[in-house]
Amino acid sequence: MQEGAAEGRREAVDRRLATLVPETAGAAARLTEAARYALLAPGKRIRPLLAMAAAEHWGGDPSAALDAGCAVEMVHAASLILDDLPSMDDAALRRGRATVHRVYGEDLAVLAAVALLARAFGVLSGPSTIAPEARLRLSAELAGAVGFEGLTAGQTRDLHQRNGTGLDDLALLNRQKTGLLFELAAVAGALAAGADGQVEAARRFGERLGAAFQIRDDLLDVEAEAALTGKDAGQDGDKPTVVSLLGAEGARARLATELSAAQAAAGDGPLMRLAQWSFPG
Amino acid sequence: MQEGAAEGRREAVDRRLATLVPETAGAAARLTEAARYALLAPGKRIRPLLAMAAAEHWGGDPSAALDAGCAVEMVHAASLILDDLPSMDDAALRRGRATVHRVYGEDLAVLAAVALLARAFGVLSGPSTIAPEARLRLSAELAGAVGFEGLTAGQTRDLHQRNGTGLDDLALLNRQKTGLLFELAAVAGALAAGADGQVEAARRFGERLGAAFQIRDDLLDVEAEAALTGKDAGQDGDKPTVVSLLGAEGARARLATELSAAQAAAGDGPLMRLAQWSFPG
Repeated sequence: MQEGAAEGRREAVDRRLATLVPETAGAAARLTEAARYALLAPGKRIRPLLAMAAAEHWGGDPSAALDAGCAVEMVHAASLILDDLPSMDDAALRRGRATVHRVYGEDLAVLAAVALLARAFGVLSGPSTIAPEARLRLSAELAGAVGFEGLTAGQTRDLHQRNGTGLDDLALLNRQKTGLLFELAAVAGALAAGADGQVEAARRFGERLGAAFQIRDDLLDVEAEAALTGKDAGQDGDKPTVVSLLGAEGARARLATELSAAQAAAGDGPLMRLAQWSFPG
Repeated sequence: MQEGAAEGRREAVDRRLATLVPETAGAAARLTEAARYALLAPGKRIRPLLAMAAAEHWGGDPSAALDAGCAVEMVHAASLILDDLPSMDDAALRRGRATVHRVYGEDLAVLAAVALLARAFGVLSGPSTIAPEARLRLSAELAGAVGFEGLTAGQTRDLHQRNGTGLDDLALLNRQKTGLLFELAAVAGALAAGADGQVEAARRFGERLGAAFQIRDDLLDVEAEAALTGKDAGQDGDKPTVVSLLGAEGARARLATELSAAQAAAGDGPLMRLAQWSFPG
């Protein structure tokens, strides 16, 4: 993917996110404001870009996957709000800005996360160029990605079961916390392109890209100062990561392995161009 | 509805809820435990019973609406977990038992609510005898009932905008916090029966029954002691309710008006038998 093409798509994503979660008036306006504060914070939008690249990769119109990709981004934003809560990571900063609960209070932070999650299901199941059966499938997959074997399970594991975690446990944790939404974004792109037969290839690509992304995130946490990442410095300091288990060199090697596996899953084309754009050098 | 028939259905609902949210093993077992603690707490199960009665009312098999009704019950249970949080009502008791966050901690309470919500969407969009287009419609309606114009908006309003609330504001609040899920349950029943043309009648019935239910709840709060309701006594003491605005007699009259309107919406039959069973005397 050319830098310019990715930037153009990212801007399209930002515009669409703002449209899909519009400001509201009245007594609950602050709820929407809190949700938009989280959702529209500057970000790479890798999940929507992945959905669009997957649609393009399998011969579809990238814009057919825009809304589904935005739905995944909403769930991602919701999960960050929850991760940051005082009862969880108790984070003050996220992406260089005060966390949602620090600005809007804990009650509105929780409610905004829930509302964003509901909106994601609404976007996936609402009117769309994606076939009805495929929309039902995406909605069911999103439910799985969030539910008792998904994000919420991963976050439970992250908060309560990190001591003594080995590489296999960590792989499951990272799949639940990161991988499943990457998989869903890629699957949504394949389904938006009508490429039902490519769903499993899309899933494998998303899984591997998600794993690579998590390793890169862990590397950045170690290497960068808070000023660079916008997160509290040392926030993950007491939790095992791929970097703490394998060292920085080992983690970089594993990241390369994941990207090779992603390439093996989908071959060259728009998906690998997105990966190369995301992981320069 | 005969007392025995309602009891039999309630037991079927309880069994199905336990099946739809099974225990899990491993690191996230406590998440499921927290969700089941909330979901399987003794309750009237009025929402699933409403879905089943609506299916029967319009000539369908009540069991065709069982899963959709259970999905609505999951969302209801999730909303109670959130309402009780320290950052919201800070309740110690619910249905006579310690609230979820008091037993499992605030982090697992929030995550259990989110997982229950996701599971509800999974049940609605998963395999079912309800037609695919109808399932998509239910999933989209649930998203609306929870999202920025639904439960989360109602809870925002409840927490931040109660001062000076008049009857109209209160009606909107109660519709967002209670009515929309009653409407959805009734609509799900109509759709499960294949009675697409009765969706708006079902919605009106659910809206009126939900309003009646909320008034009865407010009456109970005022009339009963904590020992009888299982809630903290005077929990709603500083918030306007239909009872505080109209007095107990006025509220009872309004309750009767709502039930008459429910009857006008759907006529006699299984739905009014459920209403009569729910509001004896």
